[in-house]
Amino acid sequence: MQYVKIKDVIVEQIESGQLSPRQKLPAERKLAESFDTTRVTLREALSLLEAEGRIYREDRRGWFISPEPMVYDPTQTLNFMNMAKSQGREPSTQLLGAKTILAPKHAASLLNLAPFSEVHRIDRVRSLEDRPVMCVTNFVRPELFPNLLDFDLSLSLTDIYREHFGVVYSKIKYRVSTSSLLGDTAQALRATSGTPAMVVERTNYDQKGELIDCDIEYWRHDAISIESLAELKREQ
Amino acid sequence: MQYVKIKDVIVEQIESGQLSPRQKLPAERKLAESFDTTRVTLREALSLLEAEGRIYREDRRGWFISPEPMVYDPTQTLNFMNMAKSQGREPSTQLLGAKTILAPKHAASLLNLAPFSEVHRIDRVRSLEDRPVMCVTNFVRPELFPNLLDFDLSLSLTDIYREHFGVVYSKIKYRVSTSSLLGDTAQALRATSGTPAMVVERTNYDQKGELIDCDIEYWRHDAISIESLAELKREQ
Repeated sequence: MQYVKIKDVIVEQIESGQLSPRQKLPAERKLAESFDTTRVTLREALSLLEAEGRIYREDRRGWFISPEPMVYDPTQTLNFMNMAKSQGREPSTQLLGAKTILAPKHAASLLNLAPFSEVHRIDRVRSLEDRPVMCVTNFVRPELFPNLLDFDLSLSLTDIYREHFGVVYSKIKYRVSTSSLLGDTAQALRATSGTPAMVVERTNYDQKGELIDCDIEYWRHDAISIESLAELKREQ
Repeated sequence: MQYVKIKDVIVEQIESGQLSPRQKLPAERKLAESFDTTRVTLREALSLLEAEGRIYREDRRGWFISPEPMVYDPTQTLNFMNMAKSQGREPSTQLLGAKTILAPKHAASLLNLAPFSEVHRIDRVRSLEDRPVMCVTNFVRPELFPNLLDFDLSLSLTDIYREHFGVVYSKIKYRVSTSSLLGDTAQALRATSGTPAMVVERTNYDQKGELIDCDIEYWRHDAISIESLAELKREQ
């Protein structure tokens, strides 16, 4: 399998530092030439490198070497900005939209809502060093946060909850799965449709154990490494 | 995007029960005909369904509807057989090989080993209802379990540790990332090379806090849903 060998050569160039994070790879035609191979074989190698999170593609701009992923510990504080800063990253948030709507099926089921309930829906994009890495949609129960949409929603939601509503997350249910980026989500992350994604879905409870919101995060899969420590409660 | 529409139709057929788990899809040529589309467009739709974990491909056998994924809670007891049975699944384990070798780079780094240390390497395939879903490689410190390879290694390693060596897992560090299936791993899972994978890497500590082994699991990504509950230790 020639394409596995090409992949290994590029991995070696990344690990030895000949290729640096965020560096753009040459055009596919030139790369194919330099490996003395066909475009088809080269693309198979690139696609493996993408699957392994070594490189990523920006729509119409080409292939780039992936920076280190952000370490994401779902059992720790879950404020994106603080998590990123504590790892020496430069995070930013862009608000895409916020409105109060009838809860879509998936949100109603995550939040245990009665039919025709309303929710606040907040869509944001998170970036690291100006590279968009994650699209997040929050669905929030409006009776707990009636005027939430009046706040500056490019700031941390958990900060707004705490400072203005006296609510803190005390318990989080999370689910991690894989999928791909499509449509608006792909576009917001400058990804081509079909790019692999890591999906983190969380439902969040306040200090009284009440369900307050859920959020659905679509990550560029090379940008996140989920890591945690579990103290086991029972014997195997 | 016609292929997104085709994908949606098939998702609808799965959710309404017209297509059942493990059912084989018709040949690509027939499917393309029935959707009045080209093979190229059909393949884009299938590839999205695969990315979303709705269907999976067995090498040279075709496409199948994915069964429910197994729920995997990394903070609970981590014995695969018990975890599967408690969810009404039919698990089985096949031993691929076991030997004592010089630790490869990645294992040495996970286990903090000195250069030229030996490890037991155990390769196994896990199946659910006879479908191979996960390849796992354990690297075990041999000084703690000198005659480990004499046991029946198709049984639970944690059971062997506990019953014969008085060792139980008390703390686990884990890391979840995505990659793709290649070579022997793909073959053991009857997958075509490049199939998306979920990778779970764990290092395990005994009741004295000593590092005892690590394991690297390659899952068919549609077969696993990582879910857990976190009680937050500190304020956001």
